Amino acid sequence: MAGTNGGGLRPIVDVARDLDIAPEFLEPYGRDQAKVHLDALTASGRPAGKLILVSAITPTPAGEGKTTTSIGLAQGMWRIGRRAALALRQPSMGPVFGRKGGATGGGLSKVEPSNKINLQFTGDFHAITAANNLLSAAIDNRLYFRDLDLDPTRILWKRALDMNDRSLRKIVIGLGGHSQGVPRESGFDITAASEVMAILCLSESLADLRQRIDRILVGFGGDGSSVLAGRLGVTGAMTAILKEAILPNLVQTTESTPAFVHGGPFANIAHGCNSVLATRMALASADYAVTEAGFAFDLGGEKFFDLKCRSAGLNPAAVVIVATIRALKMHGGVALSEITKPDPAAVERGLVNLAAHLDSAANFGKPTLVAINQFAADTPEELELVHAFCKSRNVPCSTANVFGKGGAGTTDLAEKVVAAASVPETPFQALYPLDWPAERKIERIAKAMYGAAGVVIQQAAEQKLRKATQLGYGQLPICMAKTQDSLSDNPKLRGRPQGFTLNVRDVEIAAGAGFLVALTGEIMRMPGLPLRPAAERIDVDAEGNIIGLT
Amino acid sequence: MAGTNGGGLRPIVDVARDLDIAPEFLEPYGRDQAKVHLDALTASGRPAGKLILVSAITPTPAGEGKTTTSIGLAQGMWRIGRRAALALRQPSMGPVFGRKGGATGGGLSKVEPSNKINLQFTGDFHAITAANNLLSAAIDNRLYFRDLDLDPTRILWKRALDMNDRSLRKIVIGLGGHSQGVPRESGFDITAASEVMAILCLSESLADLRQRIDRILVGFGGDGSSVLAGRLGVTGAMTAILKEAILPNLVQTTESTPAFVHGGPFANIAHGCNSVLATRMALASADYAVTEAGFAFDLGGEKFFDLKCRSAGLNPAAVVIVATIRALKMHGGVALSEITKPDPAAVERGLVNLAAHLDSAANFGKPTLVAINQFAADTPEELELVHAFCKSRNVPCSTANVFGKGGAGTTDLAEKVVAAASVPETPFQALYPLDWPAERKIERIAKAMYGAAGVVIQQAAEQKLRKATQLGYGQLPICMAKTQDSLSDNPKLRGRPQGFTLNVRDVEIAAGAGFLVALTGEIMRMPGLPLRPAAERIDVDAEGNIIGLT
Repeated sequence: MAGTNGGGLRPIVDVARDLDIAPEFLEPYGRDQAKVHLDALTASGRPAGKLILVSAITPTPAGEGKTTTSIGLAQGMWRIGRRAALALRQPSMGPVFGRKGGATGGGLSKVEPSNKINLQFTGDFHAITAANNLLSAAIDNRLYFRDLDLDPTRILWKRALDMNDRSLRKIVIGLGGHSQGVPRESGFDITAASEVMAILCLSESLADLRQRIDRILVGFGGDGSSVLAGRLGVTGAMTAILKEAILPNLVQTTESTPAFVHGGPFANIAHGCNSVLATRMALASADYAVTEAGFAFDLGGEKFFDLKCRSAGLNPAAVVIVATIRALKMHGGVALSEITKPDPAAVERGLVNLAAHLDSAANFGKPTLVAINQFAADTPEELELVHAFCKSRNVPCSTANVFGKGGAGTTDLAEKVVAAASVPETPFQALYPLDWPAERKIERIAKAMYGAAGVVIQQAAEQKLRKATQLGYGQLPICMAKTQDSLSDNPKLRGRPQGFTLNVRDVEIAAGAGFLVALTGEIMRMPGLPLRPAAERIDVDAEGNIIGLT
Repeated sequence: MAGTNGGGLRPIVDVARDLDIAPEFLEPYGRDQAKVHLDALTASGRPAGKLILVSAITPTPAGEGKTTTSIGLAQGMWRIGRRAALALRQPSMGPVFGRKGGATGGGLSKVEPSNKINLQFTGDFHAITAANNLLSAAIDNRLYFRDLDLDPTRILWKRALDMNDRSLRKIVIGLGGHSQGVPRESGFDITAASEVMAILCLSESLADLRQRIDRILVGFGGDGSSVLAGRLGVTGAMTAILKEAILPNLVQTTESTPAFVHGGPFANIAHGCNSVLATRMALASADYAVTEAGFAFDLGGEKFFDLKCRSAGLNPAAVVIVATIRALKMHGGVALSEITKPDPAAVERGLVNLAAHLDSAANFGKPTLVAINQFAADTPEELELVHAFCKSRNVPCSTANVFGKGGAGTTDLAEKVVAAASVPETPFQALYPLDWPAERKIERIAKAMYGAAGVVIQQAAEQKLRKATQLGYGQLPICMAKTQDSLSDNPKLRGRPQGFTLNVRDVEIAAGAGFLVALTGEIMRMPGLPLRPAAERIDVDAEGNIIGLT
């Protein structure tokens, strides 16, 4: 039985036992991490648990603490006698070494061993990188041998690295003369932004993974015909590389609550959720599966429902929107440097952002709650304003001290989530049907989720949409690529922007993942390091312990 | 007790127990692989075992089967009642997907689980890649922020990928304008050819690793002064990335013989041996540690003694030179397409190559044996020619059917190795003292190992040597980068070339690894894929098993 413990991690086989996952389904990776065989999905024989999505309002640059709140909530569930498991994303080494640092929760609500999870973990990101780059090498090898009709100026596929490295965004490869390859423009994306990452996270099995990889659109032939990855002859080898990576990873929280940490597609450019298989494993082994989706509800929540849940046939039982007093102040017009100072009036002004996300969430027809991720500087008056607002909308609300108290700080939230999730389940409402034209899908998202007055699809994007439809990709759902800093596509607009027009400047076809990406604004697929990256604070001490990581 | 078993792998904790390594020193990676904590080195309390180097004559493109013979020999040792452990290199995914395929031995002399060892294994190569590329990202980040006096045209450090990808050899990065980085020429090396790989394999501890990383020469400032990696501020984070990778990996052979498979620097451009720590672990836990060094004795053997053993203070007890009848025929002038046909006269002519390597090995003052790696096509007459030749030189010789019979095919070889290694140990003789000028060291290697009549050091190389000496690197040993296909620097010359001049065209400073690389001929640091790469044969079957890998 999971619960608080005095310190130190429990053996991972015992954590698995809390979920009735027998040791024979585990592949240990060190003492505190294990991969879980997919046979465990059907072996449990239990009815599937209820799926709880944790999303957030538009965040400050530090984030609203979705991961920390998710962890705290799952811990709180155990404290009120409910069997819960987490399904979370693995951090990317890019942000870990860049601006953000580790991403394994905080305080008394963390997943452990955090130093390992933040770095190599069980090697999944590296395997994804290798599979991605094997396809790249095969593409340039075919160009070199002139063995496939592939236009070097129309190759869509890029290489990947799990690193923030802006110098690799735009490069010229194949230089050095006849024996070194065919010169062409190309680039690297960070692994979390790669299509292989999205594919792995949406795959239902190794066979499904293989089929999706085969379907990747890598470029075009000289006659403009599409060239799919299956033509390159290495998709079997790519699948072999990913054979272990597709298995969900089991770790534990500060309070020994089981957590499946698996996959980590970016939420700006990709769909921003942990793997379908990790979510299924949590559902198969617990009564409540607590999961999160990247960034605020307008991005992460929408993609969670319309991409992940639709693809996998998942039906969430409740949605938790995380808000912080500091972010509400930011949306109320307070500068970031001032958001820790008491300012109830600003909080009240900022509630428009929370209102927007609650309105957005209502589209999907699921019980929705608000969790205030409490910080030490929050005043009772500020907290009460949020409660009063939620009461006025008939939305359950709970203040949760997840950082300072762990599961003990979320028992009220856990009770309210259990109550909200106890209503009879009806299928969720997707925001749009798949047979709508892509333009109409985009418009629907822009108006219902972002509050846009209209959408302008620029010429380049319109051409790509026409091409996508010609190629038979018109039925795919849309993965919006938009800034996380605003409901609009202008990162400077806080609160609840009104009357703006969403600009779609480009479109990409992710045929393997199974969506069309609509790009708005400047979206980073390969971040850069800041002047003083987090990597400069990370070290190994004299006893061999990693320091400075979280 | 290790020995033959009917099939299936023994639990890795039991394999460790055969070496008196207690389970608390193991970090499992799956059921069949474990990392071993360095505390196990001192915990054994046993006298160090004897170190047996397995090297080879100049190989055919298929290789002489050094790894297979090493594995067979260690298995044979157990069969004659000797406690043996292997120390071997991890295969690189580049060759695995390229021309060569898997590199885990063959037949009844393999290390298992071979499919895992050939791909992700325990993630060490990926960690090395990530550490390498974090330094790269930090370098270009400093250029971008103009935060360090670093001349973009004089940066020596390159990025790395564990992939055969010729298009990345010469690239231009940082394109796209002001916000995308500083444009400059650069490139990728395969991870196995990277200095971080060499460093990891020569490090004695995590602290030593850190110091070596700090010492890496990454480039030069505008004033020509050297810029070391320690200045980039991320060497602590690089060490954190490598914290697990430095721990030797324990697996087992077909006959459950313990094998430490750890590290894999290329033998053309780097020093070509598994990690010092894996060798130490084998020595600390067994009476005989069987290890190998890449390519033939002229390259691998020399570097093993002069670089690895000198650096680590190791003292081998015996050297085994592996020869095949087919390679001897090749050296006797037979075309590769004909080497499986009986041709005793060609074998006899080809013995000059074996003689050359035996002469080379004699320089180091250690008992030397010949193992004939037997193939089905070998005739008794051909085999007898080799035995007679060895007898004439007073060199013990044994025919070993390692592929077909495993340890049962090497008991005679094992007995002879034990006998040869039983002579009182005296320190090995290095080929040159470290205080010689670099040019003299190179000349000594060229004449004593390759049979060169002389050495020409081209102007670029001479300038680099002067620079290296000015910077205080004159005392470093030399790591020769030469073709593996000939004793000379001309890959077309078989047998025992005479009267040739070795051309040194360039020199590189590997300050962290602790050697100067002298480049002769065209050395591949980033191989390309062939028209039909091995990756095209690799797949996952309907039951989820990897096929076509070995």
